[in-house]
Amino acid sequence: MRFDVTILGSSSATPIYNRNPTAQALNINERFYLIDCGEGTQQQMLRYDIKSSRIDYIFISHLHGDHYLGLVGLLSSLNLNGRKKPITLFGPAHLKDIIQMHFEYSETTIQFDLEFRATDPSKSEIILDNQDITVETILLDHRIACTGFLFRQKRRLRKIIKERVEELQVPVEYYAVLKRGVDYFATNGQVYPNNELTTAAEEPRAYAYCSDTLYNESYFEQIAGVNLLYHEATFAHDMLDRANETHHTTALQAGEIAKITGAKKLLIGHFSARYKTLTDLLDEARSVFPETELAIEGKTFVIES
Amino acid sequence: MRFDVTILGSSSATPIYNRNPTAQALNINERFYLIDCGEGTQQQMLRYDIKSSRIDYIFISHLHGDHYLGLVGLLSSLNLNGRKKPITLFGPAHLKDIIQMHFEYSETTIQFDLEFRATDPSKSEIILDNQDITVETILLDHRIACTGFLFRQKRRLRKIIKERVEELQVPVEYYAVLKRGVDYFATNGQVYPNNELTTAAEEPRAYAYCSDTLYNESYFEQIAGVNLLYHEATFAHDMLDRANETHHTTALQAGEIAKITGAKKLLIGHFSARYKTLTDLLDEARSVFPETELAIEGKTFVIES
Repeated sequence: MRFDVTILGSSSATPIYNRNPTAQALNINERFYLIDCGEGTQQQMLRYDIKSSRIDYIFISHLHGDHYLGLVGLLSSLNLNGRKKPITLFGPAHLKDIIQMHFEYSETTIQFDLEFRATDPSKSEIILDNQDITVETILLDHRIACTGFLFRQKRRLRKIIKERVEELQVPVEYYAVLKRGVDYFATNGQVYPNNELTTAAEEPRAYAYCSDTLYNESYFEQIAGVNLLYHEATFAHDMLDRANETHHTTALQAGEIAKITGAKKLLIGHFSARYKTLTDLLDEARSVFPETELAIEGKTFVIES
Repeated sequence: MRFDVTILGSSSATPIYNRNPTAQALNINERFYLIDCGEGTQQQMLRYDIKSSRIDYIFISHLHGDHYLGLVGLLSSLNLNGRKKPITLFGPAHLKDIIQMHFEYSETTIQFDLEFRATDPSKSEIILDNQDITVETILLDHRIACTGFLFRQKRRLRKIIKERVEELQVPVEYYAVLKRGVDYFATNGQVYPNNELTTAAEEPRAYAYCSDTLYNESYFEQIAGVNLLYHEATFAHDMLDRANETHHTTALQAGEIAKITGAKKLLIGHFSARYKTLTDLLDEARSVFPETELAIEGKTFVIES
């Protein structure tokens, strides 16, 4: 099952030349999940050939402009382009007021169903559960209410070994229970262990999105062992005071979080505009967690087992 | 005196690859005036090296997203970058509510003086009068309240011919009246006509910004004879019905307006996303008004005498 994330924006607060505010497009089994939607996200989708018409879900972490100011424009464009499919939008309660005000003053009537579900910044909970994944909120520690999002694939059924079941002439009605791991009891009384007739489905993978936040251990347990951890790393560690003051994380801390929580891989982003180049931030995170990559715009990262 | 306009965005409604929603930066005597501020305007300013810190005035024509959704992001970035200089913002009354709501929910306190002046869509009036220019609203005919803006340079004082006044030993105290066109009465009784001692200042130039609007003669008289007319030309003339329905202008109509109002030059923009290339629109406008150019992003057009 396809599970990857394309970076659409990686700058914090103010954009700089070649770095846009935060947005990410997750492709999970050919459905698109947009995480945050900074100003210019719809232009970035055009640039990197992510079809905005394919987005089914949008998740907004918090109401700082660099995480949501592209949302009204994106929804307007989808509407103008004739969208009919519904969109489910998750975000802080006040986001609804903001969207309504824009549409009221521009006299816009959205022609598709925009289902808004307010996130609760007081408790972590599963906010989405569909055939492919569950999504949980992660309670982050920012200056204003902010939640991250944890995407967990569901465990899929075991796969039938076609040649083997045909050879044994297993009736088709048995396939559903075989996929669930049950052994096969043949009419002649012989028992075939399930693992002779099926192979295990791939291990479910998980992607955690943690931005924006102060280093805070409260969410470490929840994200333990994820396959890919996206963590903000706004500053280098020599700016720790500034990071604490503004409720952000340093690249070194992001590396430590990945190490402590046992992430398989780390992706850092949300870079301050003060960094023209990013290699120092990468080196810093890698000094404690070698499996680190930079959230470079336009790049797609596969969430691997 | 410098008087030019740099195009930051030229798309209508939805952006397309390489065309951003509407924004223009006017440089008048080294002060910046921003007209409209579609999503991504701050990124466009970075791209085309227009220093946002130099903006003193912002004009928003109307509350369709493609004309103002970049404003909150721009103001936030100016604030984060430590701006202290005031900004005067002109736009529809509800724009103030929108900005306030964003800043309230993001818990942002702007550290510079943002003076908001609501435009009145019921009458054309001078909304700005400083040492260099006056700015008048133009009443346009759109689906929601919308004003264009007419920038008129002020007539400057005549220029002293230095060699001549030194030769005649004209006392310095006379210079101010000479600049106003008064003849020089020398102490020996001789009268020197003013035009022997001064040269005329350049003719004041005017720039009219008309977007978005239906073809409507009501504003033609007001913009008569401008040096550069920016007029929206959302559609080609074969889409006239669609233009009328959505209250937009065709490229042919834009050319006719320039011809009828006696503009020196015409700049067309606000192109529908349906046009991948723009030469047909240009040819159409030029068929009635040869002095037409396309509002290509990143290009600077001098408002010439």
